[in-house]
Amino acid sequence: MARIVMKFGGTSVADIDRIRNVARHVKREVDAGHEVAVVVSAMAGKTNELVTWTRAASPMHDAREYDAVVASGEQVTAGLLAITLQSMGVHARSWQGWQIPIRTDNAHGAARITEIDGSFLVKRFGESQVAVIAGFQGLGPDNRIATLGRGGSDTSAVAIAAAVKADRCDIYTDVDGVYTTDPRVEPKARRLSKISFEEMLEMASLGAKVLQVRSVELAMVHKVRTFVRSSFEDPDAPGMGDPINPPGTLICDEEEIVEQQVVTGIAYAKDEAQISLRRLADRPGVSAAIFGPLAETHINVDMIVQNVSEDGSKTDMTFTVPTGDLDKAVAVLEKAKAEVGFDAIQSEAGLVKVSVIGIGMRSHAGVAATAFKALADKGINIRAITTSEIKISILIDGPYAELAVRTLHSVYGLDKS
Amino acid sequence: MARIVMKFGGTSVADIDRIRNVARHVKREVDAGHEVAVVVSAMAGKTNELVTWTRAASPMHDAREYDAVVASGEQVTAGLLAITLQSMGVHARSWQGWQIPIRTDNAHGAARITEIDGSFLVKRFGESQVAVIAGFQGLGPDNRIATLGRGGSDTSAVAIAAAVKADRCDIYTDVDGVYTTDPRVEPKARRLSKISFEEMLEMASLGAKVLQVRSVELAMVHKVRTFVRSSFEDPDAPGMGDPINPPGTLICDEEEIVEQQVVTGIAYAKDEAQISLRRLADRPGVSAAIFGPLAETHINVDMIVQNVSEDGSKTDMTFTVPTGDLDKAVAVLEKAKAEVGFDAIQSEAGLVKVSVIGIGMRSHAGVAATAFKALADKGINIRAITTSEIKISILIDGPYAELAVRTLHSVYGLDKS
Repeated sequence: MARIVMKFGGTSVADIDRIRNVARHVKREVDAGHEVAVVVSAMAGKTNELVTWTRAASPMHDAREYDAVVASGEQVTAGLLAITLQSMGVHARSWQGWQIPIRTDNAHGAARITEIDGSFLVKRFGESQVAVIAGFQGLGPDNRIATLGRGGSDTSAVAIAAAVKADRCDIYTDVDGVYTTDPRVEPKARRLSKISFEEMLEMASLGAKVLQVRSVELAMVHKVRTFVRSSFEDPDAPGMGDPINPPGTLICDEEEIVEQQVVTGIAYAKDEAQISLRRLADRPGVSAAIFGPLAETHINVDMIVQNVSEDGSKTDMTFTVPTGDLDKAVAVLEKAKAEVGFDAIQSEAGLVKVSVIGIGMRSHAGVAATAFKALADKGINIRAITTSEIKISILIDGPYAELAVRTLHSVYGLDKS
Repeated sequence: MARIVMKFGGTSVADIDRIRNVARHVKREVDAGHEVAVVVSAMAGKTNELVTWTRAASPMHDAREYDAVVASGEQVTAGLLAITLQSMGVHARSWQGWQIPIRTDNAHGAARITEIDGSFLVKRFGESQVAVIAGFQGLGPDNRIATLGRGGSDTSAVAIAAAVKADRCDIYTDVDGVYTTDPRVEPKARRLSKISFEEMLEMASLGAKVLQVRSVELAMVHKVRTFVRSSFEDPDAPGMGDPINPPGTLICDEEEIVEQQVVTGIAYAKDEAQISLRRLADRPGVSAAIFGPLAETHINVDMIVQNVSEDGSKTDMTFTVPTGDLDKAVAVLEKAKAEVGFDAIQSEAGLVKVSVIGIGMRSHAGVAATAFKALADKGINIRAITTSEIKISILIDGPYAELAVRTLHSVYGLDKS
């Protein structure tokens, strides 16, 4: 007997037929004797409809009212799934965020969960009742509904799993796991059976949009074993109810991964833009003078590369921003030119960041060199490089994106055997 | 300065444009210096969509889950109206039933309001904040959302008006008031400027579907002066903001109506079916033996006519049920035939009940005789008659419905001058 939190996203609950399919997944786990809580998103398209209405009512709207409107989508799904489960003979009830309660901070529209009292849910597990919980929302300190931001249902699921000390959190989605890279780019991509939290964080934030980054952070902090698996497979196919190795990818502590690969996956992020500041004064405070104004304008700076200056006086700095923010970023920097002190701004849009990710590279030398050589062999020019303990990110020209991903996927032996 | 509760139904908030129009009605009252609470229904069609989903999930569904799903419609409207009001510079916030809280009993799907704590709302009035309240719902003793049944937003509005001791409850709807009869049947129907609670109760329950019956009962008990008025008129037209005599019909205590008409209106209810039990044993307990089984089968019996038997042994009894329930009712009675004791059942569907309503008839003789003569003059056969202090109901054949309504409307001097 295990305690399992199951989460189903919008495409998995898009209509009553799909909700019925979700109920069969839930029933399978209940029939196996497990204690089950289910977290659901709004039916596909519903959140967009609600958001569109709030914008039509007023482009500059009160985030608390936005939350009251938009949170209704998940509440509907939770009730419908509870009804469907009951019709299949499964003892179930729906819970809204304020009923549990899931406490959040006051940042309406992008709230963070501060506390979950799991005692109600655990009591109901004892009565063999399945809890069907509206994702994406909680109760703010102002006693009003607060939503967690788009994709927040993943975070709800992991937080609830932590609160009730679940053995596992299964994130059912429209893909059947986490792959070594995007299968649309490299058909030889393999599904990973396991990936560490740290690696998944890099994969998620780099564009492998399987899981919300915050949910992975939370899973890492609370060591919640999280499975990414498909809701579209037959719920009663062989192995679907396997309590140890269900089909999908397990995101877990690196200690659980016995045979660690050097490189686990290749991620990429398109539509990066590069900004270079030439002959920058190399003095304390210059970075703050650059990135402060950008942060205030809510421009997300990604890669930052600065060389040590030869004579300690002037240097060049390069960083990337989303292409959509490039014009705004350049305008901000032009305005700050006098204070920052540089000669010229150069910029280029339409670039791609390709990243090699693997916890194993911490203990293996030469991983970066392999990447550089492989790209050079294909004639791909490297514009900038940043590295962390478990990641090498390389900025290249946009048209080479797919070639670079396939080249790196192959050189690290990730292709299907 | 007055304290006003305003209620807007589904067609009045059907889309963002109409919500904006509603906001203009609210702003008009706020600008006039009044304290305002607004109660809203779900956008037209939304409740039906949600109900359809719950039925598709399971025809026999948990009423608590139904409530969780269906209540979301009003929550959306409340948030959208609050946003719209804010965009017009009106200080406003939305409230859901559980936040106020509006306490109900445990009859999910058809709950009754048991208690409303108006103190939060009154405090916000003091801060010049408009309360936008999701209608149709409250919080049950099980700490779950409970809905009041279809049309329950009228009841929400009146209950809130009573709780905050409002000077007035304005029910905005798609008609501009209560008429002496259905204007589609008799174009000469006049809008009433005032009608007593008792008369409105008869009008509402007899098919003049302007207001939910329960809301009128509640208004009568708490003496809430209730206006029925149109949301589709220009919010800033002359007289719309008149604090004493806004356009529409005031439903009020009879003492407020100085010049009481003998007859106030003519109502009708179509699709009645008549059941007659012939040569019924005239003994104690026989009525219970008939109507007990019908009630258990949820068949709503309306008119009941029983004559005194000539010799104290056998009598005939006639009563009406909705035509849609006729077959079920006959089957129930056939089954109970032995216990009840009667010779034969006769039934006929497709009848119409026409009612003459007026508080003034309490002190005027001859009102009934006038009706009978007028109908006889037109060759309309009377099948059954029931009377109360303020109402005469007459059962006639369906095809004569419109003629009977127009005849009675004219004979009591209700036609437009």
